[in-house]
Amino acid sequence: MNNYSELLEKELLSYIPGAHPLTATLTKSMIYSLTAGGKRIRPMLAFEFAKLCGGCIENVMPFACAVEMIHTYSLIHDDLPCMDNDDLRRGKPTNHKVFGEAAALLGGSGLLTLAFETVLSEKAVKRNGYEKCVLAGRVLAECAGVDGMLGGQIIDLESENKSVTAEHLQIMDDKKTGALITAACLMGCISAGADQEQMNAARNYAANIGLVFQIVDDILDVTSSTEALGKPVGSDRENHKSTYVSLLGIEQCRAIANEKTNLAVESLSAFGGDTAALADFAVYLRDRNK
Amino acid sequence: MNNYSELLEKELLSYIPGAHPLTATLTKSMIYSLTAGGKRIRPMLAFEFAKLCGGCIENVMPFACAVEMIHTYSLIHDDLPCMDNDDLRRGKPTNHKVFGEAAALLGGSGLLTLAFETVLSEKAVKRNGYEKCVLAGRVLAECAGVDGMLGGQIIDLESENKSVTAEHLQIMDDKKTGALITAACLMGCISAGADQEQMNAARNYAANIGLVFQIVDDILDVTSSTEALGKPVGSDRENHKSTYVSLLGIEQCRAIANEKTNLAVESLSAFGGDTAALADFAVYLRDRNK
Repeated sequence: MNNYSELLEKELLSYIPGAHPLTATLTKSMIYSLTAGGKRIRPMLAFEFAKLCGGCIENVMPFACAVEMIHTYSLIHDDLPCMDNDDLRRGKPTNHKVFGEAAALLGGSGLLTLAFETVLSEKAVKRNGYEKCVLAGRVLAECAGVDGMLGGQIIDLESENKSVTAEHLQIMDDKKTGALITAACLMGCISAGADQEQMNAARNYAANIGLVFQIVDDILDVTSSTEALGKPVGSDRENHKSTYVSLLGIEQCRAIANEKTNLAVESLSAFGGDTAALADFAVYLRDRNK
Repeated sequence: MNNYSELLEKELLSYIPGAHPLTATLTKSMIYSLTAGGKRIRPMLAFEFAKLCGGCIENVMPFACAVEMIHTYSLIHDDLPCMDNDDLRRGKPTNHKVFGEAAALLGGSGLLTLAFETVLSEKAVKRNGYEKCVLAGRVLAECAGVDGMLGGQIIDLESENKSVTAEHLQIMDDKKTGALITAACLMGCISAGADQEQMNAARNYAANIGLVFQIVDDILDVTSSTEALGKPVGSDRENHKSTYVSLLGIEQCRAIANEKTNLAVESLSAFGGDTAALADFAVYLRDRNK
């Protein structure tokens, strides 16, 4: 989508505190997961929306770093034994497999805390001013909290081994995945001083691509092969998990993915500038085969 | 120290998001620990420093709530099986004993996230303005993060079953306990628009009472009885834990506690107003027998 990844990788690490030698394990745990090969989708969305609203990459950078820190913390905690108990993430040992559960717990909380330190840092204020830093931090906290990502995680936990409706799935995914994507898009807008109409449009775009992402995940779990996907397929059915596909069938899922992708692309008409990258990204999420 | 506890209890709960019915377990987990009988020392310190610098309780209230949320989250996560594995906290079952490990993990992260949502809330901005909310949130993140509380927790973890020096203990305690006490005092000052000299004095006060608190804890573990203390004594020796008492002896510990208490009280001379409550509190921490 854009080519700021070198800048991003450099700035991401610049926020890790110098830290006392006695706390080295904690910073190592944080850096391990922060540099474990994430696709940086959320920062890229923040960059694109900032550009679209007339902002610049340098200003939105701390906000983009913060949303990636939140995403990374959520993966560390999600992988813990008391949650999904995963040993591998992106082909590498999960954080607690390397550093132990306690350091993984603290490392995750360290990244969550660092996200807010970053949004409110001197660097962020110098580039964006106090008001935008408050608004960005508020959006991030709301989208990462009870009404957002953490809410989605508790719904997910309590839905295990239960039959649920498609509406239930959508509420869960809107919070679990959609909320942080929304935060990324909105923080881009905020950094650039977007107006309310643009903010609403960004919200629409985020909600629609978030849902498409999840529906396509469910479709690929049925239609793809382990080789193509790079992870085991058929796991949802094996785990008797309700998915959009099991509830609605593949054809209806494809129709919904189409409809939501169109809505995402249409929402971009609220912006004057070049929306091609964001439109392409929405279509890519629908058409991807892995 | 002051009588704002009713106001505090009411406002603390007001920040818990309305939340979707499907996320009720998460909000219940957060409320359970938030109302489990904490002594509210950190909010009270924020109130006192705000008053001392000419501020008002209403303005500092969101900051005071936020620091208590951080303190509460740290207790929930500290009690988890992968950390201290405690079944009881203040005579009640710990959060994970009631809600399970996963909901305790999420509830703790929910409070950590909510702390920043609170500092950056519309209510906080209306009362304090954007700049003070940024400065307060920044102090809170720094003091709760790698260079503060979380750093202290990793040092504590890695010090288990090791002989360490008194200097090592002090670095650990400064971070683990002192940092959040510092945040509370500084956020009080920030809300009231204190100057740099006052901020430095608040830092001194906080560092000194934090250390006295820890030294007296170690003394009471040797000199008190289980009845007087309300918790088992002698546990440090049983666990072969290095403490200020085991490293320096009781007499030197008492001398240090005295010296640090005097320094805390002296630091209050930077403030013009009535410092009696804060001076009394420092002396109380030194002289307490439980």
